[in-house]
Amino acid sequence: MDYLKGLAAAALISITFSVIPASGNIALPETVAARGHVNGGTAGEAGGGTRAVRPEGFGEGYTAGSESSKKLIDDVNVFVGTDGFGNVYPGPQLPYGGIQISPDCDDKDYDCAAGYKYSKPFVQGFSLTHLSGTGIPDLGDFLFLPGIGQEIKPSKLDHSKESAHPGYYGITLDGGVKAEMTAALHSGLFKFTYPEKNGAYVMIDLDHTLKWDCEWSDVRLLDEYTVIGSKVVAGWNPGRYVYFAARFSEPIKDFTILQDGKPVIYNTKRFRSSMEAWGKKLQVIVRFDGDSSPFIIRKELAEHGTDGHALVGSKKDGQFQLEIKVAVSGVGTDGALLNLKELDGKDFDKVLAEAEATWEEALGAYSLNSEDKTLRETFYTSVYRTMLHPFVFQDTDGRFREHDGTIGKAEGFTNVTTFSFWDTFRAFEPLMNLVNRPLQADIANSMLAHFDKSAERMLPYWSFYGGETWCMIGYHSCSVLADMILKNVPGFDYERAFQAMKTTATNPHYDCIPEYTTLGYVPFDLEKESVSKTLEYAYDDWCIAQVAKKLGHEEDYEFFLSRSMNYKNLVDPETGYMRGKDSKGAWRDPFAPIAYQGPGSVNGWGDITEGFTMQYTWSVFHDFDGYVQIAGRQRLKKYLDELFTIELPEDIPGAHDIWGRIGGYWHGNEPCHHVAYLYDYFGEPWNCQKWVRYVAKNYYGNEPGSLSGNDDCGQMSAWYLFNCMGFYPFCPGANWYYIGSPCVPGMSVTLSNGKKIEVTTKGWSEDAVYIKAAYLDGKKIGSPIIRYDQIKDGAKLHFEMSRKPVKGAFKK
Amino acid sequence: MDYLKGLAAAALISITFSVIPASGNIALPETVAARGHVNGGTAGEAGGGTRAVRPEGFGEGYTAGSESSKKLIDDVNVFVGTDGFGNVYPGPQLPYGGIQISPDCDDKDYDCAAGYKYSKPFVQGFSLTHLSGTGIPDLGDFLFLPGIGQEIKPSKLDHSKESAHPGYYGITLDGGVKAEMTAALHSGLFKFTYPEKNGAYVMIDLDHTLKWDCEWSDVRLLDEYTVIGSKVVAGWNPGRYVYFAARFSEPIKDFTILQDGKPVIYNTKRFRSSMEAWGKKLQVIVRFDGDSSPFIIRKELAEHGTDGHALVGSKKDGQFQLEIKVAVSGVGTDGALLNLKELDGKDFDKVLAEAEATWEEALGAYSLNSEDKTLRETFYTSVYRTMLHPFVFQDTDGRFREHDGTIGKAEGFTNVTTFSFWDTFRAFEPLMNLVNRPLQADIANSMLAHFDKSAERMLPYWSFYGGETWCMIGYHSCSVLADMILKNVPGFDYERAFQAMKTTATNPHYDCIPEYTTLGYVPFDLEKESVSKTLEYAYDDWCIAQVAKKLGHEEDYEFFLSRSMNYKNLVDPETGYMRGKDSKGAWRDPFAPIAYQGPGSVNGWGDITEGFTMQYTWSVFHDFDGYVQIAGRQRLKKYLDELFTIELPEDIPGAHDIWGRIGGYWHGNEPCHHVAYLYDYFGEPWNCQKWVRYVAKNYYGNEPGSLSGNDDCGQMSAWYLFNCMGFYPFCPGANWYYIGSPCVPGMSVTLSNGKKIEVTTKGWSEDAVYIKAAYLDGKKIGSPIIRYDQIKDGAKLHFEMSRKPVKGAFKK
Repeated sequence: MDYLKGLAAAALISITFSVIPASGNIALPETVAARGHVNGGTAGEAGGGTRAVRPEGFGEGYTAGSESSKKLIDDVNVFVGTDGFGNVYPGPQLPYGGIQISPDCDDKDYDCAAGYKYSKPFVQGFSLTHLSGTGIPDLGDFLFLPGIGQEIKPSKLDHSKESAHPGYYGITLDGGVKAEMTAALHSGLFKFTYPEKNGAYVMIDLDHTLKWDCEWSDVRLLDEYTVIGSKVVAGWNPGRYVYFAARFSEPIKDFTILQDGKPVIYNTKRFRSSMEAWGKKLQVIVRFDGDSSPFIIRKELAEHGTDGHALVGSKKDGQFQLEIKVAVSGVGTDGALLNLKELDGKDFDKVLAEAEATWEEALGAYSLNSEDKTLRETFYTSVYRTMLHPFVFQDTDGRFREHDGTIGKAEGFTNVTTFSFWDTFRAFEPLMNLVNRPLQADIANSMLAHFDKSAERMLPYWSFYGGETWCMIGYHSCSVLADMILKNVPGFDYERAFQAMKTTATNPHYDCIPEYTTLGYVPFDLEKESVSKTLEYAYDDWCIAQVAKKLGHEEDYEFFLSRSMNYKNLVDPETGYMRGKDSKGAWRDPFAPIAYQGPGSVNGWGDITEGFTMQYTWSVFHDFDGYVQIAGRQRLKKYLDELFTIELPEDIPGAHDIWGRIGGYWHGNEPCHHVAYLYDYFGEPWNCQKWVRYVAKNYYGNEPGSLSGNDDCGQMSAWYLFNCMGFYPFCPGANWYYIGSPCVPGMSVTLSNGKKIEVTTKGWSEDAVYIKAAYLDGKKIGSPIIRYDQIKDGAKLHFEMSRKPVKGAFKK
Repeated sequence: MDYLKGLAAAALISITFSVIPASGNIALPETVAARGHVNGGTAGEAGGGTRAVRPEGFGEGYTAGSESSKKLIDDVNVFVGTDGFGNVYPGPQLPYGGIQISPDCDDKDYDCAAGYKYSKPFVQGFSLTHLSGTGIPDLGDFLFLPGIGQEIKPSKLDHSKESAHPGYYGITLDGGVKAEMTAALHSGLFKFTYPEKNGAYVMIDLDHTLKWDCEWSDVRLLDEYTVIGSKVVAGWNPGRYVYFAARFSEPIKDFTILQDGKPVIYNTKRFRSSMEAWGKKLQVIVRFDGDSSPFIIRKELAEHGTDGHALVGSKKDGQFQLEIKVAVSGVGTDGALLNLKELDGKDFDKVLAEAEATWEEALGAYSLNSEDKTLRETFYTSVYRTMLHPFVFQDTDGRFREHDGTIGKAEGFTNVTTFSFWDTFRAFEPLMNLVNRPLQADIANSMLAHFDKSAERMLPYWSFYGGETWCMIGYHSCSVLADMILKNVPGFDYERAFQAMKTTATNPHYDCIPEYTTLGYVPFDLEKESVSKTLEYAYDDWCIAQVAKKLGHEEDYEFFLSRSMNYKNLVDPETGYMRGKDSKGAWRDPFAPIAYQGPGSVNGWGDITEGFTMQYTWSVFHDFDGYVQIAGRQRLKKYLDELFTIELPEDIPGAHDIWGRIGGYWHGNEPCHHVAYLYDYFGEPWNCQKWVRYVAKNYYGNEPGSLSGNDDCGQMSAWYLFNCMGFYPFCPGANWYYIGSPCVPGMSVTLSNGKKIEVTTKGWSEDAVYIKAAYLDGKKIGSPIIRYDQIKDGAKLHFEMSRKPVKGAFKK
């Protein structure tokens, strides 16, 4: 979750809340569960089993469901998170694939950030690019909509006519056109089945973009079968160029270009080709009936256009079946055409079968020991969501759009894009450092390519499609690279990475880094969200220091380690909370741990990013013990208890899309993701166990509304997967994890080195959330911590579970 | 001249004019000369000798003027044609150079198509790209304006503080900043000399575009010395992308980006880099005073940025002198940066000296035997104007933006752009087929590259910067290629060219080509300017037929030769004029040879393109004898006489920028350019001689207003140069020329093969316009025709002149 809508920065409210006294093991009020988007949430009525029965005739290339041996893709419900504020899309994509074809329901709704929302009434069409789980909409490029007749309008979204699974989405639209789609790595395929050929059309909308404006576009009928185009978007990525190519299985008989909904009139003055157009609000309507063709006299062109054609549209039962190969590129229409070639000789069924097989293999890295449908779907859908972003952002020849808009070529790595590091440094990246280290090398090299072309000479913050949004705070690219380097992820240049981290963390322009360096904190009179920034800078500095140490840069180690202690400068001697300080050294006054403090933050939160002090004060990942020594153990423990028990009003301005709330613990946003594990620190691991199991049970699930907040490019799902294993990376960059409580009765995951982490339990049940004893490779674990070295080459974790807290569980 | 402004297509007027009976040798009424833009025209007061005295301190690198031996660049007055409607620019460019740096006076004025106009009061700044002599504005990209202080506004245009010659333009602006500029092939240099460093700025305007709208742009401070940027223009070229790079000799201390005139505010919400921006209406202000730098803390970047720096700004007499290396590219900012490298190690004076030397050598292909200042300046300025367009449109590595927007690489040729073929097929291209055949090979290969990427699979019509405007009529690319092929210009594939010509001329979409083929003419009820189109299609078909014949395509030869006779279908049996016919075969009725006939033409002219029937009826270049056989010799001869003697009102809607009028003979536009030579056909060469000398004397000259119409990428100037030699290519593609009357007493020109055409005269004077006898290599010429074969390997032409018509001059 990274952005909140509908909150004027000026409308700052100071709120005081009552705190319920904490007890060791409080009973949850019923209202807590009722308050959030717990399984189903607002969309609970609509959700549930929409894909349990596949409507007849959908996904014909898909045979898994009819075989006796179940397949893992059957355990993924791609609709999970498509309602509420999960902001994910149900459409087909290969693992980390460069094209994300999916239905769009509302390109104007800010909370429809991935285009689709389960509870929306209409489908506008199917666009080729999507962001998974982001709080801000973008992409949604090149919308395709099939139909019959003259009227071109969105179709009713009827879930009874819809089916989807990894690699496949299909729906029957108004007028009876069945629209199906699947994806390869740089390209994809539509299959549109019309009741008849007469009147059948495909509309391609060049203007359609999720939320943002298309500033310029062009489109061209390249040959009798092929349409290409481009667009420039003034978006979240401030200047984004994207290109597409579409090759039809049937010859195009009519190609009509519309501008602003009206046909472009040709020949009113000078000649103007009806085969290409430039400008804004462009759409084309392609038809296949009639005897003539735009190329009727130019046979040589039709021949030219059939190069590489393998598709043959076929009629069945009087139906008209059309297949369209599509590809996108950040390079150019030539890149998009090149990407199409990966589909040479393949039809829809073939590509779909390959997509399904690819997903089956990818999902197979994880094995769940449970036949419980809800658990299986929750688990494998979470696995699926960690395999979407970042995604390939280069053509098949390695060319990609660099951060400065020039065209580069990835040598020795695959360029990937969409980095939501404020979110993903927490669990997604540490998970990948266990299970997908080749991906991490690609991420690292792509980050460094971005750095090399950055005007500010900074590593990416929140970047996609070659552009930097500067979204969120900190410089967690340094955490991300540090976790890789410290865990010896191979495939990139550590020294080059370190120099980039150092340059990034000393940028003189970025959000008060100079003041942070000289004063020791980000002053609230000069910078918004100053407390959150100070805390996260300090943590990132610690990460850089660890890398400096490893690479032998002693002086840098001292500099960044020293700066990483800056968090101490904001520990309020009076309350022990992290508290804003201005550039003169004066504390924020008045101050309250639950208040919108100070003007002008992005979201109106004041000194804190998307939350209150009581939530953010825990962001001392790297030296929590140091914080305790200043603020006092008793006091902080009390604050932690209060966080989970405080009663807050439901309607909190700025938090409309953050749910999964237990008092002030908001699982629907990232700042709380590590907080429950502090009970391990405070010697009450049973409270950690209680809360993580509560979260896993109530704020994850297998229905459209199950996600309690934005999936944030897999971070929410990665949190779940770590908790299925029973541990969590409290401080990425460090070599240890806190133990929580396994959310599933048993599972295993294959690491990048082929070794396995196997988790088994005894006495596990939904109610048995407490650990009686934990074993690593047969040895009892004596504290709620396991180390990276203990699991990196595989491990057998065994948990004995209990329905009641076991206070001595980690005694040897 | 290609486009007329301010004439609503609907406002059609039928005009009848009185015709003065023609006589063999009429006296010109005084009003004829007074009517047009004869030497000086509207700007006559302002013009005259502005560069005769070079203001002190201008063009210091330029030494030619101070040497005893005169240089040819002294004979070029780059201001000729900058007033009235010549639409040329005075700024520096190398021969056919890819950058055209020049002052812009008014980016909103349609009649300021090249940016500069001599009579305008202000200079807005200096932009990097310009079109030479076009009727429609475009380009004018990346405006640089130096100044002092806080106020940023256009400067007064004071001709007493201005100086220019080939390769150089300089002016002192308000506030005392001297702005000088010179050019290399892909790059150029500014030298700005400020009274002091304090307050000195350079404004770069990304939005500035002549007439059209910049739809998108971005700009970035790349390093302490370098700014890069791009823009997308919805222009005459419907979707144009252009990029620039600028490297400053002094470190940039302040870099302020403005949007819509207001500073872009940073850090209001999230961080936003002050070193880059995207969007519309962007400007940047660069300053050099102060102690800080945007890169102050990042020394490594400043070092990074100095790669390849050779410039060192120097102070002289307390002045602040700044040099800026600039380059443009159609490929990307990387292309622009690459192009800058051609300036490595060179400063302003060095590049200027090289530019002057290059021009001196280029102009040296021509030698004029006259010391008359007016003649010399008219002559060498005409030579200069034939060496500007087309211009290089590729980066130094050969990469260029193709017609489909992708990036290609020119292999074995240099890609050039800006083809105004409706104009230039007449004289410019035939001239180049004599004097610059390597350029022609580049033109041919660039045309074919365009063809290969054309959606319509057509050769270029009126194209520039990778885009097609579809401006004007016909398919004169076929004439252009035919003239090359039939004159054996080497360096391109004739067969490939022929296939492209054939495909172009049979395009089923283009302006009624199918109807023209089946009906035998373009019907006026289906197509505007139907008569002009029929005539020009027929001529172009003849050209294609000649190539078909040469290459042995017998069937194609028959087809196109047959179609080239289509002009006959519009010869009105009643009047003998070319007359419109509708698709049912009915003649245009009512009909008059001087009338706006029929609705909906681009300019409101009706069946005719930019003129009346009485002017266009002569466009049977290839078979005038055939026309005469149908319409009658007597009648057509009478019409020809009437053309030169008719009295027309001065204010003719649609012709505001067409001057140089002798009755209905309008030299300021191309349709008449060949018409005077018909007197050779009709056996009255003395009338041809009279009119061409009248035109040369009165509608050419050495003052800003001397050009009688748009120079049209050198066509007007090429007409003059042919007439200096005493002959003219009446029918490009044919192997002969009509003899006119030499406009100069003697000259020579070196052909591509190193051979010379030498023209000498006896008895030549301004009044001795008539030929008494003509000799080719010593032999008396027996008819007013010379053949290509007679001059292609050099020739000595000698004319004996007379003040009175000599009727038997061409008797043997």
